[in-house]
Amino acid sequence: MTADVPVRIFDTTLRDGEQAPGAGLTVTEKIEVARQLARLNVDVIEAGFPAASPGDFEAVSRIAAETKGIAVAGLARCKDGDPQRGVEALLPAEKPHLHLFIATSDIHLKHKLRMSREEALAAAVKWVSYARKRLGPEAEIEFSAEDASRTEHDFLLRVYEAVVDAGATTVNIPDTVGYAIPAEFGDLTTKVVDRVGTGAVISVHCHNDLGLATANTLAAVQAGARQVEVTINGLGERAGNASLEEVVMALRTRPTEFQVAGHRINTEQISNASRLVSYLTGFTVQPNKAVVGRNAFAHESGIHQDGVLKNALTYEIMTPQSVGLAGSRLSVGKLSGRRGLQGKLAELGYELEGEALDKVYRQAIALADTKKEVTDADLTALVEAQASGAGSVEEKLADSPVQLVDWSISTGKGGVAKGAVSLVVNGQGAEALAEGNGPVDALFVAVDKAVEPIIGWYPRLAEYEIRAVSGGEDAQGQVMVRARRSIDPQDTPDTVNGHGLSTNIIEASLEAYLAGLEKLLWHEAAAATDAGKESDA
Amino acid sequence: MTADVPVRIFDTTLRDGEQAPGAGLTVTEKIEVARQLARLNVDVIEAGFPAASPGDFEAVSRIAAETKGIAVAGLARCKDGDPQRGVEALLPAEKPHLHLFIATSDIHLKHKLRMSREEALAAAVKWVSYARKRLGPEAEIEFSAEDASRTEHDFLLRVYEAVVDAGATTVNIPDTVGYAIPAEFGDLTTKVVDRVGTGAVISVHCHNDLGLATANTLAAVQAGARQVEVTINGLGERAGNASLEEVVMALRTRPTEFQVAGHRINTEQISNASRLVSYLTGFTVQPNKAVVGRNAFAHESGIHQDGVLKNALTYEIMTPQSVGLAGSRLSVGKLSGRRGLQGKLAELGYELEGEALDKVYRQAIALADTKKEVTDADLTALVEAQASGAGSVEEKLADSPVQLVDWSISTGKGGVAKGAVSLVVNGQGAEALAEGNGPVDALFVAVDKAVEPIIGWYPRLAEYEIRAVSGGEDAQGQVMVRARRSIDPQDTPDTVNGHGLSTNIIEASLEAYLAGLEKLLWHEAAAATDAGKESDA
Repeated sequence: MTADVPVRIFDTTLRDGEQAPGAGLTVTEKIEVARQLARLNVDVIEAGFPAASPGDFEAVSRIAAETKGIAVAGLARCKDGDPQRGVEALLPAEKPHLHLFIATSDIHLKHKLRMSREEALAAAVKWVSYARKRLGPEAEIEFSAEDASRTEHDFLLRVYEAVVDAGATTVNIPDTVGYAIPAEFGDLTTKVVDRVGTGAVISVHCHNDLGLATANTLAAVQAGARQVEVTINGLGERAGNASLEEVVMALRTRPTEFQVAGHRINTEQISNASRLVSYLTGFTVQPNKAVVGRNAFAHESGIHQDGVLKNALTYEIMTPQSVGLAGSRLSVGKLSGRRGLQGKLAELGYELEGEALDKVYRQAIALADTKKEVTDADLTALVEAQASGAGSVEEKLADSPVQLVDWSISTGKGGVAKGAVSLVVNGQGAEALAEGNGPVDALFVAVDKAVEPIIGWYPRLAEYEIRAVSGGEDAQGQVMVRARRSIDPQDTPDTVNGHGLSTNIIEASLEAYLAGLEKLLWHEAAAATDAGKESDA
Repeated sequence: MTADVPVRIFDTTLRDGEQAPGAGLTVTEKIEVARQLARLNVDVIEAGFPAASPGDFEAVSRIAAETKGIAVAGLARCKDGDPQRGVEALLPAEKPHLHLFIATSDIHLKHKLRMSREEALAAAVKWVSYARKRLGPEAEIEFSAEDASRTEHDFLLRVYEAVVDAGATTVNIPDTVGYAIPAEFGDLTTKVVDRVGTGAVISVHCHNDLGLATANTLAAVQAGARQVEVTINGLGERAGNASLEEVVMALRTRPTEFQVAGHRINTEQISNASRLVSYLTGFTVQPNKAVVGRNAFAHESGIHQDGVLKNALTYEIMTPQSVGLAGSRLSVGKLSGRRGLQGKLAELGYELEGEALDKVYRQAIALADTKKEVTDADLTALVEAQASGAGSVEEKLADSPVQLVDWSISTGKGGVAKGAVSLVVNGQGAEALAEGNGPVDALFVAVDKAVEPIIGWYPRLAEYEIRAVSGGEDAQGQVMVRARRSIDPQDTPDTVNGHGLSTNIIEASLEAYLAGLEKLLWHEAAAATDAGKESDA
C-alpha cells in the first residue's frame, strides 16, 4: 500500500474548531491563525464555510489569496448556492480544496434533511460533478458523508463509489457525533479503503464526545486512511475534534505502529499554535492536556523525579523541545535593543519586524519598568496581544471610536467599590461614576452609563476570564471578555471577544471591555453596510 | 468469559491524580473528595501512598476508617518499609485493597532501580506473600508491573504468573509513560488474560501523554480486563490518567462493543465530582473536555442547532442529565428559607444539613443582596468554598491564626496602585501600606510587610488563578493561589493552595492569599510536631 506517503494533515481549526460556541474569531484573527498554521506546515487549511456568512466568505477568500504552497479548503453543503459560493471563495487559491458534504445516516436524513437515501446520493453526485467542472481536473474535491459512523455500511460505500466516479479525489469518513470505538472505526475505514482506496485518498474526521477522537483517527490511519482532519487544542463543538498535536506526536513517537511515512508537520511550532488559538478563542487548555498542557512535561512525585533525573527516557517519551517548549528565562534588560528582542522572539517562534517589532519592544521596555523580571511568558503575551490588535490602552485605541481619557477605582472591606471613567466615544466626551459589588463591576457599569446616551446601548457581558501570565505577585493579567449589545437577544451570533493585558488586573479588565465595545461598534457599522448591499441586490 | 461481571472502577484521583504538580490536597480536602467518590459509587478508592508522608498515611487511614461498602486502596513499593506502612494504614478498612508495585522494564530497572530482572521478580513475590499473610485470605492484593507496556513480554508474563501464585488477586498493566497504541495494548492485555486471567482480575492503568489513555483502557476491556484505574477529569502527572467520566460514559453509551455488564457508577454524580476536584486542585477543565467540559453538550453552528431542535439524537449521544447537568436557573429569592435551599442543593447533588447548611444559607442570602440573580453556579461555588474550608473572610478566619481587620485599595490610569491592610497575626496586630503595579500586587505586598516582622517570612506566590463563577458584571470571582514560605526553596513540596470567593475580585484575591498564609502556618506547626515525634523514635 501507500506506506511511503506521509499522512496529509488537514487542519480545520478555522472551520469546525471555530464553530465551538464562544470561539468566534474576526477575519483578522483568522488570518493570524492561518499564518501560524502555515509555519506549522499543515497540508490543508480549512479556512471556513463560505456560504455561512459574508465574514466567513471573506476569511476563506483572503486566506486563499495569501497562502502559498499549502492547500486552502472551504466547506459547502450539497445544496444549491453553497458549492457556488465555495468555488468563488477559493478562486484566489493556488491549491483549492473544495469540501462538499451531505448527511447519510438515516437519523440525519429523517430528522434533519427530510430526504430519502436516493435523494441524498443524487445531490452528492450532482454537486461533486459540478465542482469538478468548475474547478478543473487539478483541484482537490473532497466529499464527506456526515454522520458516516452511524450510516448503514452498504449505502455508505455506494455513496463513496458514486462520488469518486463523479470526480471526488478525497472521501472523508466523519464520526460526527463522536460515537465510534477505535476497533470498530478501523474496521469501517478498512471497508472504505477496500472499496474506493485506489481512486481516492481516504480521510477521517473524528469528534471527541467519548474522549476517543485521537484514537479513532489513529486506528483509521492503521487501516489505510491517508488524510486526517484535526484542530489545534482539539478545538471544536461540544468536546471538540481530534487534536492535531496528539495525532501528530503519536505518529512521530510510535512510527513502527503505522505503515506511513510520518507527516510534514514542523512540530516545534506546536506550542505557539496552541497558545495563539487558546488566546484568540478564549478557550483555555487544561494543565493536563496531552502535549500542550502546562503540565504535559512536568513531574512531581519523588519516584518520578528520581527516575527523570537519572534518565529522562524513564518517564518522557517526547522531549519538550520537540513541541517548541524552550523553557529558557531571560530578562529583557539583558537584551541588546530591538535586535536582541527580535532574536529572542525568533527563538520563541515569532518572526516580527518593522512596526510590529517596534511596538512589542516599546511595551517590553515599559513592562520591565513595572515588573521585576520580563519572562518568555510575558513576551509571548505581548506578541499575542499584538495579534489580536490589543496592546496598551493608549496605543490600541489611537484610531478607534473609543478613547479612554481617565479612570480610577477604590474599594475596601465591607464597602461597595467605586469606579469612574472618562471616555471619548464617536468624538463625544462622556464621564460617569458608578458603584458596584466589586471594582470591575463598578468600572464596567460606569462605562455603560457613559456610553449609553451616545450610542443607544451598552456592552452586555456574557463571559469574563482572567489568567496570570506568569507566577509572581507582579505578574501580568490577561483578561478576555465576551460581550454583546444590550439591545440584542441573548443568543445573538454577534457576540465578540475583547482582550486586555496589564500588570494591573483592573486596567486589563477595562481594556478588554473597551476592546469588546469597539468590536461591537465595528460589527454594527459592518452590518449597516451589508444591509445596504443586500438591499441593492 | 466474564461477560456478566461489571467492570470494576478503581479511582486513583487521590493517589496518582493528586501527584500532579500543583494539585496537592490537604487531608480534609481528600476526605471531601472520598465522600464524593462514594456518592459516585466507585468500586475502589485509592486514597494515597501511605509510606510517602505522614499526611498521606493519615489520609489513607482516615478514609479507610470512614468508608463503608467500598474498597479502599493504598499504594506501596516492593521495598522494605512500604508494605508494612500500607498494611497499617489499611487496618481500619472494611475492604482493604493493598496495591504493590515494582518496575519491570529494562529501562526502569537499569536507570531507576539499578536491579536485575530476577531481583525485581524476587522482590515482587516476597512482598505479595508478605501482604497476603498480613491481610488474610479475604483482602484484595493487587500487583502492578510499572512500565509494563515497555517491558519484554515473556518476562512480564513470568512476573504476573509468579505474583498470582504468591497470592495476588489482581494484576495491573500500567502504561506508565502513556506510550501504548490501542491495538497494541489490547494485544498485550489478551496475553495477560490468557496467562493469568483465571487466577486474577486483570487491571489496566493508562496515562494520557499521546491522548490515548481512554482508548487504551477501553481496548483492554474489550480484551478481557475487568478493572480500570482512572481519575476524575483525567487528573494526574504530565498529561494525566485515563479519565473516569470518559471510560464510564463510553461503556454506557456503546454497551454492545464491550462484553461486560457495564459498571456500577452513579453517572448523575459525575458533574459534581468533576467540579469538586477541579476546584480543590485548582486544575481547570477545558471547555472542550469530553463529558465534563463546559461545552461538552453545547452546539453553535446553525446546521447543528437545527438538527438538535428537530431531534436531540442527531447530534447528542448522551444526555446532559445522565452526567448530572440539571441546567435549571432559579434565584434564591424564590426559595422558601433553609428547606427550600436544602432541596435545591439536593437537586444539584449536594446533601447539606445542620451547620454546613446554615452557613451556605447565610452566604446565599448575603450574596442575593449584592448580586441580581443567584444562580446554580453561585450555589455550587458556595458549597465548594465550604468544602475547602473557605467562606466569607469573617466566618472563615474566626478561629484562625490570621484575622483580617481591614483593607482598602485605590488605583487609576497611569498611576501605581496603593493598598493597605490591618491584620492580627498570632495575636499580634500588624498594619502596612504598600504600592504595587496593580491592586492585587499592592495588597499582597502590604500583607507581606505586615506579617514578616511577626512570623519571620511571608507567602511567596507561585501561581494565581481567577475565574468568574457565572456570566454578568456582578459575578462572583473564584480565586486560587499557590504559595510557599519565602524562606523555602522554589521546589518545596510544602506549597499550599488557598481559595477565595467574592463578588469583589480584589477581596477574593486577598482572601485566597490569607487562606494560603494560614495553611502555611499550619504546615509549619505540623512539621514542628512531626520533627518532635521523629526525634522521640
